Amino acid sequence: MENLTMIIDFYEFTMGQTYFDKGEIDKIAYFDVFFRKNPFNGGYTISGGLDNIISYIQNFHLSKEDILYLKNTNSFSDEYLEYLQNLRFTGDIYAVPDGTVIFPNEPIITVKAPIIEAQLIETTLLLYFNSNSLYTTASKRIVNAAEGKKVMEFGARRARGDISSLEVAKCAFISGCIGTSNTLAAMKYQIPALGTMAHSLVCDSDNEYQAFLDFAKSNPNNCMFLVDTYDTLKSGIPNAIKVANEYLKPNNLEFKGIRIDSGDLAYLSKEARKMLDEAGYFDAKICLSNSLNERKIKNLIEERACFDSIGVGDNIAAANDIVGGVYKLSATEEDGIITPKIKISDSKIKTTNPHYKKVYRFYDQNTGFALGDVITIYDEEIPEDLYTLINPTDEYRQKTLKNYYVRELQVPIFINGKLVYRAPSIFESQKYCEKEFATMYPEIKRTSNPHVYYVDLSKRLLELKKDLIQESIRKRIR
Amino acid sequence: MENLTMIIDFYEFTMGQTYFDKGEIDKIAYFDVFFRKNPFNGGYTISGGLDNIISYIQNFHLSKEDILYLKNTNSFSDEYLEYLQNLRFTGDIYAVPDGTVIFPNEPIITVKAPIIEAQLIETTLLLYFNSNSLYTTASKRIVNAAEGKKVMEFGARRARGDISSLEVAKCAFISGCIGTSNTLAAMKYQIPALGTMAHSLVCDSDNEYQAFLDFAKSNPNNCMFLVDTYDTLKSGIPNAIKVANEYLKPNNLEFKGIRIDSGDLAYLSKEARKMLDEAGYFDAKICLSNSLNERKIKNLIEERACFDSIGVGDNIAAANDIVGGVYKLSATEEDGIITPKIKISDSKIKTTNPHYKKVYRFYDQNTGFALGDVITIYDEEIPEDLYTLINPTDEYRQKTLKNYYVRELQVPIFINGKLVYRAPSIFESQKYCEKEFATMYPEIKRTSNPHVYYVDLSKRLLELKKDLIQESIRKRIR
Repeated sequence: MENLTMIIDFYEFTMGQTYFDKGEIDKIAYFDVFFRKNPFNGGYTISGGLDNIISYIQNFHLSKEDILYLKNTNSFSDEYLEYLQNLRFTGDIYAVPDGTVIFPNEPIITVKAPIIEAQLIETTLLLYFNSNSLYTTASKRIVNAAEGKKVMEFGARRARGDISSLEVAKCAFISGCIGTSNTLAAMKYQIPALGTMAHSLVCDSDNEYQAFLDFAKSNPNNCMFLVDTYDTLKSGIPNAIKVANEYLKPNNLEFKGIRIDSGDLAYLSKEARKMLDEAGYFDAKICLSNSLNERKIKNLIEERACFDSIGVGDNIAAANDIVGGVYKLSATEEDGIITPKIKISDSKIKTTNPHYKKVYRFYDQNTGFALGDVITIYDEEIPEDLYTLINPTDEYRQKTLKNYYVRELQVPIFINGKLVYRAPSIFESQKYCEKEFATMYPEIKRTSNPHVYYVDLSKRLLELKKDLIQESIRKRIR
Repeated sequence: MENLTMIIDFYEFTMGQTYFDKGEIDKIAYFDVFFRKNPFNGGYTISGGLDNIISYIQNFHLSKEDILYLKNTNSFSDEYLEYLQNLRFTGDIYAVPDGTVIFPNEPIITVKAPIIEAQLIETTLLLYFNSNSLYTTASKRIVNAAEGKKVMEFGARRARGDISSLEVAKCAFISGCIGTSNTLAAMKYQIPALGTMAHSLVCDSDNEYQAFLDFAKSNPNNCMFLVDTYDTLKSGIPNAIKVANEYLKPNNLEFKGIRIDSGDLAYLSKEARKMLDEAGYFDAKICLSNSLNERKIKNLIEERACFDSIGVGDNIAAANDIVGGVYKLSATEEDGIITPKIKISDSKIKTTNPHYKKVYRFYDQNTGFALGDVITIYDEEIPEDLYTLINPTDEYRQKTLKNYYVRELQVPIFINGKLVYRAPSIFESQKYCEKEFATMYPEIKRTSNPHVYYVDLSKRLLELKKDLIQESIRKRIR
C-alpha cells in the first residue's frame, strides 16, 4: 500500500515548526476527538474507524520523498525536517472500540503525546472516525428500522470512492447487515457476497421467461429472480412461478424468491406474497430494493408489506449527513504537571471540556439498560452506590443514580507508541455492537425526535470548566 | 497498489455465468452511463472520475486468488472461471472528458464490449463517475457562488476515507479551487498546499499575542493569523496587528492576513477590514471559513463582507447529495447487426433511451454560448444550417436552432481494449472545465431554481423509442 502518512493538513506542519522552534518537542499535549451532534437528527452515533487509525499510527512515518517535498516548499528549517524524518508516534491513544454507541461531547478518542506528534495525526484521526462512524451509524439506523428483516448492503456503485466502498461494506456488517454485494469486500472481510440479477439480463433476452430460465440453469443455487423489468404482477411474478414450476421443481432446485426494485413496494410485495403462496411457494422469499431509507422502511413495516430482506445502497454508502468529529487540545503536560486547557466560544455548546478526561457509562443492575454517561477528570473515582448526574448546560437538572454498574468506555490502544489493543475481528465487532445497542432504551433509538441520552460532567469537571472560563475572560485582553 | 478489480457487484458474476452458458461470450452489448437528476437541485453537473476509470480498465484482471475465491462460492462452472481468469477488457469506451458540463439523461460514458466484460465493469464505472462527479459539481458550485474570490479546499478531515480525500482535492482543483490543505494530495497532484494555523496553537500558548509572535518567527513567509480563538475584534485582530507592527514590519516580512473561523463572518470581516486598513495593512488578506456552503457564501457577498478567500471543507468533501449515475443496456450486436434495447418503467422519465447513441452540443456562433444538446442514434449526421430540438417528454415544445456550431461531447477512450485517449493533466482539466463552464448561460448556473438546459432527442431516436415502447407492451405478456 502507498504510504498515506502525508494525509496531513499542511497547517499541522507549520504549527509543528512553531512548537519545534519553541523547544516544545517533549511537551506533552492531550487532545480529544469528540463531536457535537448525532447525524440524521438521531439520538445516537455508532463509532467506527478505529481499525484504520491503528493501521495509520503503526505505519506513521515520512519517507525521504515526503521530506524532500516539504523542503521544497521553503517553509521549514533543516533541523525540523530532520526531526520529522525520524518521527514515529510515541504517545498514548485511548479510544472506544468500533461499534460502540456514542454521544455528543464525549471524548471518543484521547491522544496523549508529544505536541508535534499529536498535532500531525489530527487530520487522519478525524477522517477515519468521521467517515466510518457515518457508515456504521447510517447502517445501524437502517438495520434498526428494518425490525429484524435482513439488510443487505448494495452500495458499491454509490460509494464515495473505491476504497470507501470496502469501508462501507465493513461498517455495514459491523452494524448488523448480513453481507454485501461488493465481491472484493466480501473476499477481504470474509463476509457473505450477495446479489440477484440486474434488469440488463432480462433486457438482453428475447423475453422475461427465457431470461429467468437461463439464469436458473446457470445459477441453480441462487434462484432469486428480479421481477420488475416489464410488469411485476402481470409478467415478472408469473414468469418466475412458471420457471419454478417447469424447471426448478422438476429438478429439485430451490426457488429462493424474487426481488422487486421499483413501483409501490408495499402493495406489490403483498400481492407477490399472495401469488407465491397460492402457487405453493411459501418459502420463496421477497427482497425489496429501490433507494430505501429509514422512512420508507418504516412505511413498509407500518403497511404490513410482505418481505424478508431489503437491499440498501445509497443510504448507507452515500448517506447524506456528516459525523462532524473535531480534535481539541484539552491539556498540556510539562515536568509531570498537567495544565488543563479550554477553548472558549461565543456559543456555549462550542466551549470545550478541559483536562485529561475519562467517560463512564452507568447501567441499571437489574435491567442492563444504560442510564447515562458521565465525563470526569482522569483521576476521579466513581462511587459504587450513588451518583448524581448534573446537566452541564442547566445545573438545576440533576438525576441521582443508584443500583448501577459502571463501565469505562475508552480502552487503551497505544501506550508509549506500542499497540496494546487486541483488535477484534469484524464478527466480534458485529456482536459487540449488537450487544451494546441492546442496552439502549428504545426512546434513544427512535427514528425521529429521540430522547436525549444523558451525558453529564462530573462536579469536579464542571467546577474546573467554570474556573477556566473565568480565567480566560481575564486573559483575553493583553 | 492492491488489485481493486474485484470491486464488482456479485450479481455481475452470476449474470456472467448465464451469458457464458448461453454462448454469448462474443455477443456485443452497448451500455450507457447516465444520470436522471442534477445534484443540489441545480441546473448542471460537472463530470469526473474518468481518470480513475481509465486506470481501472487498464489494470482489469482477476488474480488467481480472486478466481479461487469465486470457485469457493460454489456458484460458477470451471469453464467460466477459466474464461474469467484470462479476461481483459477488449471493448470500446467513449466518454466525456473530466470537467465537462453535463446534464440528465445524456449518455456520459458509452461502453461497447462483449457482454460479460461490459457487465463486469458496471460497478466501478458507476462508482468512479458518481463519486467524482459529486466532488467536481459540489466544488464548482462553491467556486461559482464565490464570484471570483479564491476557494481553498480544506476537506480532508471530513472526507469519506483516506483515498477519497485525495480524490476530493483533485476534483476541487479541476473545478477551480486554488489548492488544498491536504499535503499528500498537494504532493501527488503538484498543486498548492494551503493552510494557516489551528486554535490549538493559540490555546497552547500563554496568550494570543505570544502565539502569533512565535508563529511568525517560525513561519516568516506564511504569516496569516487565526484570530477568533478568544475574541476576534477585541483580541485576535489587535494582536495580529501588534505582531505585524512589532515584528513583521521591522523585519521586512509580509503580513499576509488573517483567518476568521467563527462568529458572524459578514460583520466581523467588515470590521476586520477597517481595522487592518486603519493600521495601514491594505494588502493583508482576509480568509473566512466555518462550514461555508453556497447559501452562506452568497449571503456574505450580498452583505458585502470583506474577504479575499474562503476555506471550504464539509461542503466539498462531504457534500450532502448524490450523483445517481446508472448503467443501462441500450443495444446488443450479433453478426454486425445492432438491436436496440429499452427498459420500460412505470414512470416515463425512467424509461431508457435505446440504441447506440451520440450527444452533440450546439453553440451560438456569435456568442459562444451553449444552446442545447441533442442525443442521436450513432450514425446520424447533424445538418450545418438548421436543427429543430424536440422536447422528449412534450413534443409540442420545439425550438429551431440556426447559426450554430456543433461539438460531439464524447471522445474515444478505449478502442478494442487499447487506450486511445491522451489523458489531460489536472491543470489542463481545470482550464477545460473553466472554459466549458463559461459557455453556459448564467440562468443554468443559478444556485436555486435554475433554467432547465435543453437536452433533446433527435427525431429518429424519438421515433425509435416510441416503436420500442409499443413492441415492449406487446412482448410483456408471454
